[in-house]
Amino acid sequence: MYDIEIHEMRRVDLEGATIIDGFPSVGLVSSIATNYIIKLLDLREIGVMDSDGFPHVTLVRDAVPLSPVRIYAGERTPKGALLVAFVSEFKSPPEIVRSISRSLMDWAEDRKCKMIISPEGLVVDPDLKEKAELSDIVFAIGSTDQARELLRERHFQTFDEGVITGVAGMLLIEGRARDFDVITLLAEAHPNFPDAGAAALVLEAMDDLILGVDLDAKPLFEEAQRIESRLKEIQVQAIPKAPKPITKPSMYG
Amino acid sequence: MYDIEIHEMRRVDLEGATIIDGFPSVGLVSSIATNYIIKLLDLREIGVMDSDGFPHVTLVRDAVPLSPVRIYAGERTPKGALLVAFVSEFKSPPEIVRSISRSLMDWAEDRKCKMIISPEGLVVDPDLKEKAELSDIVFAIGSTDQARELLRERHFQTFDEGVITGVAGMLLIEGRARDFDVITLLAEAHPNFPDAGAAALVLEAMDDLILGVDLDAKPLFEEAQRIESRLKEIQVQAIPKAPKPITKPSMYG
Amino acid sequence: MYDIEIHEMRRVDLEGATIIDGFPSVGLVSSIATNYIIKLLDLREIGVMDSDGFPHVTLVRDAVPLSPVRIYAGERTPKGALLVAFVSEFKSPPEIVRSISRSLMDWAEDRKCKMIISPEGLVVDPDLKEKAELSDIVFAIGSTDQARELLRERHFQTFDEGVITGVAGMLLIEGRARDFDVITLLAEAHPNFPDAGAAALVLEAMDDLILGVDLDAKPLFEEAQRIESRLKEIQVQAIPKAPKPITKPSMYG
Amino acid sequence: MYDIEIHEMRRVDLEGATIIDGFPSVGLVSSIATNYIIKLLDLREIGVMDSDGFPHVTLVRDAVPLSPVRIYAGERTPKGALLVAFVSEFKSPPEIVRSISRSLMDWAEDRKCKMIISPEGLVVDPDLKEKAELSDIVFAIGSTDQARELLRERHFQTFDEGVITGVAGMLLIEGRARDFDVITLLAEAHPNFPDAGAAALVLEAMDDLILGVDLDAKPLFEEAQRIESRLKEIQVQAIPKAPKPITKPSMYG
Amino acid sequence: MYDIEIHEMRRVDLEGATIIDGFPSVGLVSSIATNYIIKLLDLREIGVMDSDGFPHVTLVRDAVPLSPVRIYAGERTPKGALLVAFVSEFKSPPEIVRSISRSLMDWAEDRKCKMIISPEGLVVDPDLKEKAELSDIVFAIGSTDQARELLRERHFQTFDEGVITGVAGMLLIEGRARDFDVITLLAEAHPNFPDAGAAALVLEAMDDLILGVDLDAKPLFEEAQRIESRLKEIQVQAIPKAPKPITKPSMYG
Repeated sequence: MYDIEIHEMRRVDLEGATIIDGFPSVGLVSSIATNYIIKLLDLREIGVMDSDGFPHVTLVRDAVPLSPVRIYAGERTPKGALLVAFVSEFKSPPEIVRSISRSLMDWAEDRKCKMIISPEGLVVDPDLKEKAELSDIVFAIGSTDQARELLRERHFQTFDEGVITGVAGMLLIEGRARDFDVITLLAEAHPNFPDAGAAALVLEAMDDLILGVDLDAKPLFEEAQRIESRLKEIQVQAIPKAPKPITKPSMYG
Repeated sequence: MYDIEIHEMRRVDLEGATIIDGFPSVGLVSSIATNYIIKLLDLREIGVMDSDGFPHVTLVRDAVPLSPVRIYAGERTPKGALLVAFVSEFKSPPEIVRSISRSLMDWAEDRKCKMIISPEGLVVDPDLKEKAELSDIVFAIGSTDQARELLRERHFQTFDEGVITGVAGMLLIEGRARDFDVITLLAEAHPNFPDAGAAALVLEAMDDLILGVDLDAKPLFEEAQRIESRLKEIQVQAIPKAPKPITKPSMYG
Repeated sequence: MYDIEIHEMRRVDLEGATIIDGFPSVGLVSSIATNYIIKLLDLREIGVMDSDGFPHVTLVRDAVPLSPVRIYAGERTPKGALLVAFVSEFKSPPEIVRSISRSLMDWAEDRKCKMIISPEGLVVDPDLKEKAELSDIVFAIGSTDQARELLRERHFQTFDEGVITGVAGMLLIEGRARDFDVITLLAEAHPNFPDAGAAALVLEAMDDLILGVDLDAKPLFEEAQRIESRLKEIQVQAIPKAPKPITKPSMYG
Repeated sequence: MYDIEIHEMRRVDLEGATIIDGFPSVGLVSSIATNYIIKLLDLREIGVMDSDGFPHVTLVRDAVPLSPVRIYAGERTPKGALLVAFVSEFKSPPEIVRSISRSLMDWAEDRKCKMIISPEGLVVDPDLKEKAELSDIVFAIGSTDQARELLRERHFQTFDEGVITGVAGMLLIEGRARDFDVITLLAEAHPNFPDAGAAALVLEAMDDLILGVDLDAKPLFEEAQRIESRLKEIQVQAIPKAPKPITKPSMYG
Repeated sequence: MYDIEIHEMRRVDLEGATIIDGFPSVGLVSSIATNYIIKLLDLREIGVMDSDGFPHVTLVRDAVPLSPVRIYAGERTPKGALLVAFVSEFKSPPEIVRSISRSLMDWAEDRKCKMIISPEGLVVDPDLKEKAELSDIVFAIGSTDQARELLRERHFQTFDEGVITGVAGMLLIEGRARDFDVITLLAEAHPNFPDAGAAALVLEAMDDLILGVDLDAKPLFEEAQRIESRLKEIQVQAIPKAPKPITKPSMYG
């Protein structure tokens, strides 16, 4: 349906890199976690993903206009590890989700990356919750035998039965079909507002799994407060200027 | 409209195979019956059917992410019989039904399969039902003279007048046009929830018609209970995360 | 917009044939009349018209699955006359009407047929009706001077001013543009249910105009009763299984 | 979006001809005026404009089926003047207006016509009306300096500020871009029903501007009565047979 | 999605020109400011931007029909400065915003222009407003380091965090991706009616930034009054003639 293009401003050698999928999800867990990693590890913007199907909204941050979907990369560590992050703050329409996932995966293969990780929120039924006390567990799913083996080694709780929607779900399917390692990490999240607590849980799991930097997730909780108040201010301008379908041409002579 | 692609992970010789159409129908009869056969006869996943028109939802089962439409195959029996099953748990939008049916039929011809069987639910008017006592009868329709002859030999009750919608209906038309044997088996089913009883009836008919394994459908009734309770749990995550059209971009800064 | 294809199972010489347009119209006059002729004169199915735009519903009749739009042909009479009938029981969406009409006309020219006749229902204002006593008159319109001359010779009442919609209307325009004889016969019909009486009136006019078999329309009135009761039974299955747009994927695990 | 085709049944030399735009507008002024000129000056049908985007309704007049958009031409006068008229009685959907205008203009240039005139209705605010006494004034707009000069010579009141929608408005823009003379004549009209009075005013202005036949517009007022009563009769058949979107296939077996 | 075309009636050397983006925005600030500059500096129409996606409404001004999107250019100053303005009075549908922005940017690069300036309105939360006293401040955003440097030199208040929608927002993103200077100037504006005061504020900032003509914005306030009253008159004709979707063909015979 929609064409998706990836433009790289800076061409970086990404062989063996791990990609973090920061497309927005339940509780904006992926956006919050990915933005935090970008800031914490000082990743630099290397390109954008572009499509006619994306919302036409320009985010301004630190006085710089940003594309709806941006790609960041870090420095390669002495051990050769490299992080790449795709991040967006605006939900894309559902009919473009499959194309986003395929383009990201094509690009990951083309650039010889080795893994994609999706930090995701999980909504749990209040009734089940009381019984199961899930609130501080991170669940994990892997697309391949190798990824599932890795999750077992690190003693992750597997997500055995359920449904994953959005970009993360499609990446799992694509990863399985192409034998490419995709891992989704799930923490219980509030479905209706940004959930920094869930993001912190998933971040710790990501640290454990790939970062190995003994990441301090506490500031994220403080950040969460700032995020929410900033969010409120920004929406003041965003909402009245949001594009909407026009049935009758408006006119000024 | 929509492109449909079939990807085979494992290339298997399917000459002479019988295909079971497990696309969801009334009372989910086809999905339940097909999933049960896959489990009972230990069919293995050999590929997926893929399309931009399919719902973008990833089912996780036994910790493995599954495509919305999957293809399974069994081992060839000493007598040379071979089963292939297409199965899906999510209803596809109606405008893609014709394309699904044609692609499945093209593939069946290309792979030299010999027959397609659709296990379907049938909704009967409560008034008519009391008169006709239909509740334990399986009706059958064949696309070709040969298929109808087979149904007569096995003493099936023919479905003489009525309307078949969805993938099963289109397969019958395609089968008639291409002189390819397609058989639809119909059992009375509840239109609004998964009907394991109807699935069991149709399964027995399928056993009689093609499997010949003297299949024990009783466990299906117990399975039906487990299916329903699992269904409830899964929907807890599925519903709040289900993709929905967004009129206003949601934002986080 | 939509591609329309005509598939002929049996290739028959149709030079000089008269085509009956049995696409559904007011009071289903065209469907009833055409189905009656098919049965009465024992026409045989020679092909189907197919399109992604047609409803995906399979009609089962006498245990045989039928395409939504079918083509039938009779035997050539000693005098060389030959009848071909297009028939459908399901209304197609309006945006496909123009394509249907053009494809039918292209095919008619290609196969060297000589005329198309549309049996149609006409809705009359109750107020006008009392004044005009129209109820047993068949009106006629011709696409060409030659067709209008034929109607005058046979003393048909011409339809002078008004509006014809659907396939019949488009066929008249195409016929005029291509100088191909198209005749529409109109009888007053109930707009909301199958009107066998109107179909009988139009059938008598068709007999007079082209069949010349001194057709007995009386059985049609009895048939109308059977049609209505069968209709009711069939809809029991048709309605709950009718395809409908799905906003949220339904799921079973 | 939509393809527009112009088919000419009779190929006539149209060099230097003036085209009247009879696509329906406010108060159907253009349709009424153009139909009147066609009848009065005995213009003959020379072709049709055709598109999948036009409504699929066939108008029957004097027992002849007519296309939704027809092209008529008169005889060249001794002085070399020639009239061509495009006329339609059914409003086209707005998304096709631009294509209609461009096709008409392309054709006008290709056939070396010299001018297009649009007779249009103008809706005036009741409050302004009392002040301005506009009711018997015809306003005019020209697409080129030459057209505006002509309007000044003939002492037309210019339409200085405002908005023109539909085919007429797009023709003005196309005419300005291509330096082709397009003139719109505007008379105050009732927006909700056929306004023969406004059509008569515009006709007199057209007579003054291009026809020069000292046209008698009085019969138009009588004609208006006939038009309205005929309109009522015709709609009796038109409304119930009008094509409408079908959500559920209707069925007859 | 939509093709956008730019037609130049007069081919002018535009190397080094500054483009003013007058596509309508909050409070019509861009349209008012751009129209005022066109009048004040006597810019001349040099072309139009055209698309099937634009509203089909023709604005008549000073008796001349105008395209929905027009391009104007001034005379080159002795110092070599040159102004080009794109202006429109009708909001385009949101799905065409990205294509407009890209076409404008392609054209700007092709014609070797040096900068694009978007005069925009900014909606501020009444609660925040009281605290911040923003009402006479113009905020600025630049797409490139060079543009941001220029804004700093001229002591503009930068817009640090927020969201910009519409053509202006997309131009910022395109400018950043192509390293082309785009500057958006933002003044607080009423979201619901034409705000000449905000336009005057932005105009003064533009004067300061690029015009350097010591522009007198006061007449703009008087003009604003005339604009509003004219607006009211024009809408009298515009509203009833506005194109609207037709569900049922309207008819006249």
